Amino acid sequence: MNELIDLVSKYEDVSTEKIKKGLADGSIIFVKNIKRDIKPLALGRPLSVKINANIGTSHYSSDIREELKKLEICERYGADAVMDLSTGGDLKKIRKEILSHTKLPVGTVPIYEIACDLVMKKGVGIEKMDINAFLDVVSEQAEEGVDFMTIHAGLTRECINRLKNKKRILGVVSRGGSLLVEWMEKNNKENPLYKHFDKILDIAKKYNVAMSLGDGLRPGSTIDATDGPQIQELIILGELVTACREKGVPVMVEGPGHVPINQVETNIKLQKSLCHNAPFYVLGPLVTDMGAGYDHITAAIGGAWAAYFGADFLCYVTPAEHLTLPTSKDVKEGIIALKLAAHAADLARNNGKAWKKEMEMSRARRELNWEKQISCSFNPEKAEKMLRGKIKKSYPCTMCGDLCAIKTSDRCKI
Amino acid sequence: MNELIDLVSKYEDVSTEKIKKGLADGSIIFVKNIKRDIKPLALGRPLSVKINANIGTSHYSSDIREELKKLEICERYGADAVMDLSTGGDLKKIRKEILSHTKLPVGTVPIYEIACDLVMKKGVGIEKMDINAFLDVVSEQAEEGVDFMTIHAGLTRECINRLKNKKRILGVVSRGGSLLVEWMEKNNKENPLYKHFDKILDIAKKYNVAMSLGDGLRPGSTIDATDGPQIQELIILGELVTACREKGVPVMVEGPGHVPINQVETNIKLQKSLCHNAPFYVLGPLVTDMGAGYDHITAAIGGAWAAYFGADFLCYVTPAEHLTLPTSKDVKEGIIALKLAAHAADLARNNGKAWKKEMEMSRARRELNWEKQISCSFNPEKAEKMLRGKIKKSYPCTMCGDLCAIKTSDRCKI
Repeated sequence: MNELIDLVSKYEDVSTEKIKKGLADGSIIFVKNIKRDIKPLALGRPLSVKINANIGTSHYSSDIREELKKLEICERYGADAVMDLSTGGDLKKIRKEILSHTKLPVGTVPIYEIACDLVMKKGVGIEKMDINAFLDVVSEQAEEGVDFMTIHAGLTRECINRLKNKKRILGVVSRGGSLLVEWMEKNNKENPLYKHFDKILDIAKKYNVAMSLGDGLRPGSTIDATDGPQIQELIILGELVTACREKGVPVMVEGPGHVPINQVETNIKLQKSLCHNAPFYVLGPLVTDMGAGYDHITAAIGGAWAAYFGADFLCYVTPAEHLTLPTSKDVKEGIIALKLAAHAADLARNNGKAWKKEMEMSRARRELNWEKQISCSFNPEKAEKMLRGKIKKSYPCTMCGDLCAIKTSDRCKI
Repeated sequence: MNELIDLVSKYEDVSTEKIKKGLADGSIIFVKNIKRDIKPLALGRPLSVKINANIGTSHYSSDIREELKKLEICERYGADAVMDLSTGGDLKKIRKEILSHTKLPVGTVPIYEIACDLVMKKGVGIEKMDINAFLDVVSEQAEEGVDFMTIHAGLTRECINRLKNKKRILGVVSRGGSLLVEWMEKNNKENPLYKHFDKILDIAKKYNVAMSLGDGLRPGSTIDATDGPQIQELIILGELVTACREKGVPVMVEGPGHVPINQVETNIKLQKSLCHNAPFYVLGPLVTDMGAGYDHITAAIGGAWAAYFGADFLCYVTPAEHLTLPTSKDVKEGIIALKLAAHAADLARNNGKAWKKEMEMSRARRELNWEKQISCSFNPEKAEKMLRGKIKKSYPCTMCGDLCAIKTSDRCKI
């Protein structure tokens, strides 16, 4: 462990003391399965904000090569982790390929594998799911090296009752969450992941798999945001955080979702309070429901500010969100939008490394050093393509030409 | 005037009383030259947030047809105003074409016309600018119908002294601002636009041209944000707001610029206080300098939150910002990103019209009504293209397929 702490301390430019303190109180976690030889995903203040990219097949599109191409893009454009959300094709094979092709931490949602087997292969309902089958999947994936798993253990019958009293516009939009709601409703029993959470933790402990406590009742519309059912689940997630810590299992909490701007700060602060400062992993948040085709932007707007207020890990959203499975190009656009959001938050969180990068770009801009500006940008090929043939080193850009304010500033020695 | 108030009241769904009160105290302004037969650009709380798109030629690219194509895109994707920032080709002709082709309010930066004439045509320095020549340009443009003008009258010698004491990384990045700094430095005299501001107001009053008080010292890097020179100029802009109001000239104030997230709220609240609640017109703000190729996103991140904190008018930024003159495609991407930002802010500002639109999209999503989702989106063609051939009416999307959470919610009656 000390070796990992040194590695992270060096990479993050944060003292080992601060990291040890954070690890001790759970406000920092390292995400890394003991089976994997990778740099851990280190989450929590004062470390830098990280981003996750979701990849994976669906019933309609299950080409492994396409997913590996997306994985390559994740590495190239700086995703800090990937989640394999595959629900089509040979799930085990895809997962193994992903795990063997990357040094990035890999996350999964184990209930998807059960659902694919029951619902999509065998054609029976999710209510046939047996907790032992679920535990077997968790165990198998942990043995394969999966570093973190989304477990929707906080969505209990109590939450469903709250949900029934509320009438949301968009009900349950979490796939895993909706499957568990159906299981509970049809079996008239408590959430098996909640009931047997200790068994899940036993496996997690063995492999040091991080628990990512899923928010099955995250709002799927800004109209449903920060409502009773959502906060009810969050209270329970806070209790599960304590259970994880007691077992020595690294834990983070997943969060919304669709949240209007004026509720973002409250959502982050409430999570930090109810969940005892566990790292917060947010999906966006999307600040409007109207982003079809542009949800990487609505997510960047919410994500940057969520991270400023205290979120630690941003799940990217691609332009394809709400419409279709993302292509490689969508993956790239999603990563870059959220990288910018994370960087902007790091600046606002006064992260030294981020300011160093920012300073480098700003100096290059002052010097009209276009090559440097290209190399500093998050997508150098795009910047290069936009500039191609239009500028020479130290010349002003085609926007201002001779009226370049930087040239004028130089003349005035300002 | 009462007719215009009724028109705006109906369009905005805000009572005429509130609008009259805002117009009386200057927190709301209507932007419309008396020469033009258009719907006024109505700015200020509690009205909706508006967006501006900059178009215009440069020395390197001065095809009028290309600019008219951009203008068409501005109208199609919902820009609320355009600024003609042309600095190449026949400026008068371009401006006339733009004014005759659109019902959108049109803004300009008159000093550009002088600079093009002196620096680019005659090859002399901007220090040769004569205040009478400047006033003639303002007068001519007002007579042509220009609805609002950026006037950098607040950048005085006092500000330059502050600037010299400070050493910014990026000096002056406002083109207009830098030209005036050069004029003052070379002539060793006070800013002529400040000195003769009353004469500018006389012309503005005659045509009801709105003053957009330029922020010549806006930070061009997050490192320079909220510094002495910037705030010095803002204090003076506040005094000029009073001068405008005393003359009965509608006035708004322009604002930053490059601002890290943790300084956005302060910037907005300071402007509102120093400038007596005049509508605030912000350029972004860009929350990092690292957005080359993606500055529409860094601007959307800052703009949405700036508008939530009180900014009223967002100037779009395109992916081409800092690199080159935007193409039509860049203009489109810039508009959509800032429309999303403005809409997200309107939701957070509890704007009834915005919530109605949001509700429509969310209902369509619940009903898996794809046609409706396409028509509700900010770029229906893009959404349609992404979905094409992949879905049928009321079917789940290719992302979740049979594991669709909405279908599951329906089965569980939630």
